[in-house]
Amino acid sequence: MARLGLTVPDWLRQRADTTPGRLALVAETRRFTFKELDQRVDAAASALRERGTLSGQHVGIRASNGAGFVVAVHALMRLGAVLVPINIRLTAPEIEWQTHDAELSMTLDDAAVRDLLDGPPAARTNRQFEFAQPHSIVYTSGTTGRPKGAVLTYGNHWSSATASALNLGLVPGDSWLACLPLFHVGGLSILLRSVVYGIPAVVHTRFEPGHVNQAIDTGGVTLVSLVSTMLSRLLDERGDRPFPASLRVVLLGGGPAPLPLLERALRAQAPVVQTYGLTETASQVVTLAPEDAIRKVGSAGKPLMGTQLRIESDGEICVRGPTVSPGYLHQAPRVPGAWLRTGDMGYLDTEGYLYVLDRRHDLIVSGGENVYPSEVEAALLAHPAVDEAGVVGLPDPEWGRTVAAVVKLHPAQSATAAELIAFCRERLAAYKVPRRVEFKDSLPHNAAGKLMRRELRVF
Amino acid sequence: MARLGLTVPDWLRQRADTTPGRLALVAETRRFTFKELDQRVDAAASALRERGTLSGQHVGIRASNGAGFVVAVHALMRLGAVLVPINIRLTAPEIEWQTHDAELSMTLDDAAVRDLLDGPPAARTNRQFEFAQPHSIVYTSGTTGRPKGAVLTYGNHWSSATASALNLGLVPGDSWLACLPLFHVGGLSILLRSVVYGIPAVVHTRFEPGHVNQAIDTGGVTLVSLVSTMLSRLLDERGDRPFPASLRVVLLGGGPAPLPLLERALRAQAPVVQTYGLTETASQVVTLAPEDAIRKVGSAGKPLMGTQLRIESDGEICVRGPTVSPGYLHQAPRVPGAWLRTGDMGYLDTEGYLYVLDRRHDLIVSGGENVYPSEVEAALLAHPAVDEAGVVGLPDPEWGRTVAAVVKLHPAQSATAAELIAFCRERLAAYKVPRRVEFKDSLPHNAAGKLMRRELRVF
Repeated sequence: MARLGLTVPDWLRQRADTTPGRLALVAETRRFTFKELDQRVDAAASALRERGTLSGQHVGIRASNGAGFVVAVHALMRLGAVLVPINIRLTAPEIEWQTHDAELSMTLDDAAVRDLLDGPPAARTNRQFEFAQPHSIVYTSGTTGRPKGAVLTYGNHWSSATASALNLGLVPGDSWLACLPLFHVGGLSILLRSVVYGIPAVVHTRFEPGHVNQAIDTGGVTLVSLVSTMLSRLLDERGDRPFPASLRVVLLGGGPAPLPLLERALRAQAPVVQTYGLTETASQVVTLAPEDAIRKVGSAGKPLMGTQLRIESDGEICVRGPTVSPGYLHQAPRVPGAWLRTGDMGYLDTEGYLYVLDRRHDLIVSGGENVYPSEVEAALLAHPAVDEAGVVGLPDPEWGRTVAAVVKLHPAQSATAAELIAFCRERLAAYKVPRRVEFKDSLPHNAAGKLMRRELRVF
Repeated sequence: MARLGLTVPDWLRQRADTTPGRLALVAETRRFTFKELDQRVDAAASALRERGTLSGQHVGIRASNGAGFVVAVHALMRLGAVLVPINIRLTAPEIEWQTHDAELSMTLDDAAVRDLLDGPPAARTNRQFEFAQPHSIVYTSGTTGRPKGAVLTYGNHWSSATASALNLGLVPGDSWLACLPLFHVGGLSILLRSVVYGIPAVVHTRFEPGHVNQAIDTGGVTLVSLVSTMLSRLLDERGDRPFPASLRVVLLGGGPAPLPLLERALRAQAPVVQTYGLTETASQVVTLAPEDAIRKVGSAGKPLMGTQLRIESDGEICVRGPTVSPGYLHQAPRVPGAWLRTGDMGYLDTEGYLYVLDRRHDLIVSGGENVYPSEVEAALLAHPAVDEAGVVGLPDPEWGRTVAAVVKLHPAQSATAAELIAFCRERLAAYKVPRRVEFKDSLPHNAAGKLMRRELRVF
C-alpha cells in the first residue's frame, strides 16, 4: 500500500475548495462554513507560527470543548505540527509528567485557543498531508496503569473516517454532535470525520442533557457519540419524549453498555449503534450495523471494513488494519501488519459478532473460574433500585479472589445487600455472585465516562 | 502512507462476514446476497484454480455483462490473479494483440464465466488484499492511438470507492445500476464499489432504455452511471414521465455532455451529476457535488477528496492522488506523487470548477486559434433538428486546419448545411464556425458510448 495516497491535500482546505458554503462547525454561538473555518485556521496557523510553532513539533492542547479547540486542531495540521490533546482533569503533577513525556514545545490552554478565534486574518498556508505522518499523540485514557502516548497517523484517522461512513452511511444533511471531550479520541475523531465528510460538527462545551436533547430535537443533529452514562441521563431528561426519526445514529461507546439501558433506549426509539473502539485505533474497531441494533443488542458488532479481529486463546481481543496506530511514543514501532493486543477480553458469537467482556486487568479469577465484572454489574443493574454498579475482586485465602460490588442506588429507592445478593443468585452462577455489596453515593469515572474500577474503594 | 492498510481482508469476504443477508447482486433473473455471492465466488475460485490459475497471473475476461462476469471478477481477486477485462467489440487481430500485450495466461469468454455460476460448491479460499498489489490491467478505451494497459491497484479502486461515497453519500437502501460495459472502468468500478459499500449492484446485460427506466421506477435503483447518449435514449423512452425521487444520482460521464441534453434531463427531474474520469484513475477524478448540479451545469465539478488537479499552461488537465494508476504495462512505473497527464484539455472557472473541453489530440488549431470540437458540437446540438454532431479539423493550406462537422438529424426533421452554418455563426466566433457540414445516418461510438472522432469520415 506504499502507493495509496502518498500525499493528499489538506482535508479542510479541500473542503473549503469543494464545498465552501456548507456548514462546518457549530460551537456555542459561533457558526463557520468550511470557507470561513479554513480562513480562520489560516489566521490561527499564522499566529501559531509567529509564536514559534514548527512542522514536526509536538504541541499540547489543554482546553475545554469549543470552537477554539477545533481551530487549533486544524491549525496544527496545517503547520505539520503534531497534536497532543491533554485531559483537562489531570492534576498538576500529571500534566507535568505528560508535558515532559510528550516532549511538548508548547501547550495551548483555554485562553490561547480562544485567542486563535480573534486574531487578524492571514495569507493562505498550503499543506499536503502524508498518510504515514503522525497527526496526533493521544494518551490512553488510563483506566489501568500509566498512560501511554499512542501515535495516530493521518492515514489512521482517514481510514477510520471512511470505514465509519461505509458502515453508518453518509446521508445528505448529516450533522454530528460532539459532546464527548475533544481530548479523547471519541471526540477528536468527530472533528476529523466532519471535515472528511463535509458535514457540520456540532460541538458542545460540556455534556448537558437538556442541551443535547434540544440539538437532537430541533438542531438538525443526525448522529451523536455517547457513552452509557450520558445516554442514561439523556433518557432521564427526555422523560417520555421519543427520539425523532431525524436522529440516525446514537453511536454508543466507552465500554459494554448495560442491557437495561439498551432496552430503555430502544423503547425511546433511540437508534443505538453499539461500538467498541480504542485510542490506538483512532476510535471504532467494531460497530454494530444499524440493521442489527435490535437483533444483536449487547454486542459491539463486527469489524469496520478493512479492520480484522482475532480472539486469542485466553480471550484477549486483537486488532489489525489501517486504523491501527504504528506504536507508542518512546517504544519500538509496531511491526507492520502485526496484531494489536487490546488488553480487552471478549468473544465472538456463532455469527461473528463481538461481545466485549472486560479489561483483562479487571478479570476476577475466583476458585479457578473467570468472572467478568461487567457481567455481574449488568445483573445488578437489572435490579430496579440500582443506578450504578462496580464490581472488583477482593483477595481471599480460599478462592484467590472473591467478587465484591459497590452500588449506587437510585434516589428515593432502597435495597439491602442481602436483597441484591439474592437477586444476583437468581441470575448468575454461584461463583459470580458478589459475596459483599457496599453502597456509595457516587462511583468514580474518568473523563470519557468510563467506570474506573481500580479506584473503587471497597471496604 | 506505507503504513495505511498494509493488508486488508478480501472485501467480498468481509461483506459476507459482516452483512451476509444484504442483497449483493441482481443480474437478469439471478439474485445473490453477500453470503451467497461469497460462496459462489469460492466455488468459482476453486474451478479456476483447477484450470491452472495462479496468484499473479494475468487473466482476461471477454464476456458480456452478467452474473458470470461479476463472479469471475471476484474469483480472480480471491486467487490473487490480475483481471484484464477485454472489450467484446474488438476484432480478432485486436484481441490477439491484446492477449499478447497483456501476457494473458487464459481468457474467460461468455461460456466460461457462465460455467462459473453452475459449478459445485467448494471450500473457503482466504485472501488478504495488499493495497499496492495490481488488481486489474484495464486498456484505455482508445479513442486515439493504440490502447495501453493501465495497471490499477487494490488501493486505487478502494480510494476511488471511498472518495466517491464522500461526495455522493452512502444512503441506507442504495442500489447502483450498471448498464455500462463491465469491461470499461466505468462499469467495473460499480462492481467494486458495491462490495465496499455493502449495497447491491444491479447489472444489465446490455443497455435497454425501457429496462433501465423500469429498474429506476420500480426496481429500487438509487444510483446509475450513464454516458450522454444513454441518458438521451432514457429520456426519449420516458416521454413526459419524470424520474422518481428515489433516484438519487445519475452519474454522467464519458465526455462533456451537451448542454441541451442536461437541460432536458433537469426538466425531467433527473438528478444528473456530471463527472470526468479516466481509466488511469479507476473512474472519477472530478464530480459535481449534488448541490451544484444545476448552478454549475456543464461543469464536471471538483476533485474527489484526496485527488488534486492542475491545468498545465497549454490547458492539459493533470491529476494526482491515491486513485492514480502506478503506470502502464511495459512502461516504467510512474514516480510516486508525479502528476498524470491526462491528454484532455480543460479549464477551471473562478470558483475552481473543472470544464473539460476535449482530448488534446482532437484540438483543431485553425489560423493559430484553438477550436475545441465539443464546443462546436454543443452549438450544433442546440439546433432542434440536430440529434448528434461530430466535429473534426480538415487540412487546409491557408488556415492549417478548418472546422468540419458531421451531423445526424432527428428522424423526420430537416436542416441544410447552410442553415446549420448560419445557426453556428450566431453562437460562435467566426473561426469556430464549421466551413463544411455533412449529414450521416449514424456516428461512430466506442463501447463506452464515446464519440470516436478519429473514425469520422468527412468528405
